[in-house]
Amino acid sequence: MRFVHDTLPQRVRFGSGEAAEHLAAEIAELGAARVMVIASGSSRELAERITAGLPVVHRHDEVVMHVPVEVARRARAAAAAHDVDVLVAVGGGSATGLAKAVALDAPSDAPLPIIAVPTTYAGSEATPVWGMTEAGTKTTGTERRVLPRTVVYDAALTLSLSVELSVASGLNALAHCVDSMWAPRTDPINQALSAEGVRALRDGLPQVAAEPESLPGREQALYGAYLSAVAFASAGSGLHHKICHVLGGMFNLPHAQTHAVVLPHVLAFNAPAAPDAAARLAAAFDARSANEGLALLRLRLDAPRTLRELGMPHEGVGAAAEAVVAAAPAGNPRPITVDEIAALLDAAWEGKEPR
Amino acid sequence: MRFVHDTLPQRVRFGSGEAAEHLAAEIAELGAARVMVIASGSSRELAERITAGLPVVHRHDEVVMHVPVEVARRARAAAAAHDVDVLVAVGGGSATGLAKAVALDAPSDAPLPIIAVPTTYAGSEATPVWGMTEAGTKTTGTERRVLPRTVVYDAALTLSLSVELSVASGLNALAHCVDSMWAPRTDPINQALSAEGVRALRDGLPQVAAEPESLPGREQALYGAYLSAVAFASAGSGLHHKICHVLGGMFNLPHAQTHAVVLPHVLAFNAPAAPDAAARLAAAFDARSANEGLALLRLRLDAPRTLRELGMPHEGVGAAAEAVVAAAPAGNPRPITVDEIAALLDAAWEGKEPR
Repeated sequence: MRFVHDTLPQRVRFGSGEAAEHLAAEIAELGAARVMVIASGSSRELAERITAGLPVVHRHDEVVMHVPVEVARRARAAAAAHDVDVLVAVGGGSATGLAKAVALDAPSDAPLPIIAVPTTYAGSEATPVWGMTEAGTKTTGTERRVLPRTVVYDAALTLSLSVELSVASGLNALAHCVDSMWAPRTDPINQALSAEGVRALRDGLPQVAAEPESLPGREQALYGAYLSAVAFASAGSGLHHKICHVLGGMFNLPHAQTHAVVLPHVLAFNAPAAPDAAARLAAAFDARSANEGLALLRLRLDAPRTLRELGMPHEGVGAAAEAVVAAAPAGNPRPITVDEIAALLDAAWEGKEPR
Repeated sequence: MRFVHDTLPQRVRFGSGEAAEHLAAEIAELGAARVMVIASGSSRELAERITAGLPVVHRHDEVVMHVPVEVARRARAAAAAHDVDVLVAVGGGSATGLAKAVALDAPSDAPLPIIAVPTTYAGSEATPVWGMTEAGTKTTGTERRVLPRTVVYDAALTLSLSVELSVASGLNALAHCVDSMWAPRTDPINQALSAEGVRALRDGLPQVAAEPESLPGREQALYGAYLSAVAFASAGSGLHHKICHVLGGMFNLPHAQTHAVVLPHVLAFNAPAAPDAAARLAAAFDARSANEGLALLRLRLDAPRTLRELGMPHEGVGAAAEAVVAAAPAGNPRPITVDEIAALLDAAWEGKEPR
């Protein structure tokens, strides 16, 4: 056993229907008096409702996917102009991402704490990773000061997330958990958190699919998404994410659906070479094997099965396999060759049984 | 699902035979130049060996159990006189405890970080709890600034811990894990970490007992002890610890052995009322039930079975039961009555089957 694990400081307040109360408690504890609320137009009403009792000096609704630099600049200028002392981000990964971009720019002697109120399963709220886009290129980095001080999870705020989006986003979170088992910085702590995330998502996602208005399933899914982000941020990108990144970049495939298709193939590929991880996953899936557990869950969720249906050209398999091997993550439990990755991608393209 | 969970910042460096290297890396990263090493006389040689390459300005060996106030004062004076900028504690709970007492006293604009190198399964290194004793009374408190910044775990340093002490201390850690399942601030995150701790201790302790010189068992036990401390510090004291605290105080029973005797009875008492916790524990014990898993482990470790053999007078059961009920922790899954606790203590006294 050999590892270095950094546990990052963060409070999680979890309670359905309690976001307003929890936010007020956090603002009071911080002694903050000048709140900037970041929430896109589509989240405005919800954000106004849960922040109604706070000392809000500015509401910022210019929230754009991938945080374009000029959007970040305007948000920073607004924060400075209003002399804000805390950022409250309400929404998905883009709202949290914008808050991070603002906090990243705060002077070190006057840091801007973030309180995140996620309304999706994006997970950005639980990581110190920021990202910004300029001229089509995304720059990312890791800075402790952008990690939200507190996350307020309120599953009632996720009820409006459609089943389709919930399942896709939930399977993306599941992929983070599974891939954390053999990512470059994996360690037993990450693996324990990942297994707990799998347990929660396996339990929650079918409930969300069957009864989207029911809170217990939403709570488990949200909790599982949180754990997936914690584990993934700590463990780094494993083989699965490298493959999805390559496919997304080369063929412009939809992010979450690509994860859903590729995951069982990577699991079947790595599991025999990572028996401990496979046993942990099997237990977390409450199944005889990790592969079987994932297959059953995907069946219940009616997840997509082929890269073909997502629009990947079959003749792209070879080039993609080479790109994956070139970007192969360190420490994968099984050696990665172009032939084997090509076979894996071919099976995923056609929807063959993962092996 | 409803909880507030504070994740505290700490780095864990885990590697057998790597303590010196890991310490040097941490000191370098801190930019520290004036190290105070805290280690008792019995750990001196070991401490000198792993700190040989560090800029040590003072070695402090007055380490006393329960941190008497005057001992803390002398250590603080030494830290000030030598103008130290980091504390390195090598040893068990007493060495870590003394470092915490020194850090507690540091001015807030010049905090004294602690790097802990534990040589036992005490777990203090993973908690923000400090304690000091004055005129026979122990005062404890919780302060983030006493939480060691980094823990350097090196299982090779625990090889000299006798099997008897390892097992007793390991079962104490196991009790922390089990009790965290229903302690006042229990939450799913604590429970996941506790379950992982049970898994590691269940795996490691029998190896330590059978082959004290073998590193893999020592590693699992040390890792499990770390998790038990993290979970316990977050979840608080549950019924089991209240009982042991009462018994220890009233009858001066040995700490770790009392835990070993009482734990199966508390588990059997609470498990039917906490089916989720019981299922998690059963999985962690890799047994059909939590009770059976614990029973098998205790058998393999030849743990003590009766309060009688530990010296508790049988006529003390009634008074102890009343004291336990008076100190009953909030949120126990099953209501606690004097009659039921008396029956539990009676069974533990005589070594009856837990039920």
